[in-house]
Amino acid sequence: MARDAAATKARILQAAVTEFAAVGLAGGRVDRIAAAAAADKKLIYNYFTDKTTLFDAALQHALAQLVATVPIDEADLPGYAGRLFDYVIEHPHAHRLAMWRRLERPDAGPDDGRIYSEKVIAMLSGPPDRHQHPIPPVDLLVLVQAMAGAWSISPVQLLAADGSDPAAKSRLAEHRDALVTAVRRLIDPAT
Amino acid sequence: MARDAAATKARILQAAVTEFAAVGLAGGRVDRIAAAAAADKKLIYNYFTDKTTLFDAALQHALAQLVATVPIDEADLPGYAGRLFDYVIEHPHAHRLAMWRRLERPDAGPDDGRIYSEKVIAMLSGPPDRHQHPIPPVDLLVLVQAMAGAWSISPVQLLAADGSDPAAKSRLAEHRDALVTAVRRLIDPAT
Repeated sequence: MARDAAATKARILQAAVTEFAAVGLAGGRVDRIAAAAAADKKLIYNYFTDKTTLFDAALQHALAQLVATVPIDEADLPGYAGRLFDYVIEHPHAHRLAMWRRLERPDAGPDDGRIYSEKVIAMLSGPPDRHQHPIPPVDLLVLVQAMAGAWSISPVQLLAADGSDPAAKSRLAEHRDALVTAVRRLIDPAT
Repeated sequence: MARDAAATKARILQAAVTEFAAVGLAGGRVDRIAAAAAADKKLIYNYFTDKTTLFDAALQHALAQLVATVPIDEADLPGYAGRLFDYVIEHPHAHRLAMWRRLERPDAGPDDGRIYSEKVIAMLSGPPDRHQHPIPPVDLLVLVQAMAGAWSISPVQLLAADGSDPAAKSRLAEHRDALVTAVRRLIDPAT
């Protein structure tokens, strides 16, 4: 019974991730989530209170998947950036959900980022040599994450500025290389 | 009469920028835009065909204002990044509209970026020494723009990771400094 409940909750969360990533909080329909999860709508409200709470849970779920698959690696930020680039292109849900949240709830509190807080706190109180880096650890992380997701939110024209297919594998590989090089230069100017 | 029409169009565009930046394309209401612009709804459709076309015109309008205020300065990308950071925080409309577009119309064509194309083409065919930089010009521009807007789309928790008010002027100044330093290191590893 408890296992059934957990399985149902997981199905609801996955359906919520798909629905909200596609159309956002305002556009998301609990009816569609219930249908996709083969779950009763009343049960969804029973588990998640209301649509906004379900949205936050979906965002947490997607971010947890992202962080589990691509853990922040302070010792290898260029490699981390490359892996994050790959993940965001193949699994855009977490990135899209985070953008919807910033757009639709600009005044919402800091709860959506608690997935990062432990890691960030560790970085903030990290090894002393890191503190001597001209860029503070939190800024470094924010800048690296922004660069890793850059191609998924940039004006489309830039993607096709040279006239080639921006989604072509070879173009993506070039952008990934440029990203990793950029992060390497941020970390260690001698490279 | 032509001047009246131009003034009315400008009022409609400004109202459309405000409306769509706040709630996006799906959530935006032409009724509210008409009321805010003190313009007839039929006139809006007469000028802009439909809501989607009006949204695109609003995005173009906001991007044009951004580019006019903060022109891309290839010779001083760190300074450009700092100015873009200031602009996005003080005038988030263009950035928000661009994000709405990517979220709500992921398959839309490249027309929303034509404001950049001339500049990008100039950079692509720029001075030879730029071509020897390990990061291609288009990647450099995309990465710099992503970093400049990073704090406006990052998980809120990161902003408050040290417990201070993320919107505090002193914190913003620190983030701006870190950004300018980061871009300087991208450009010239000796700094």
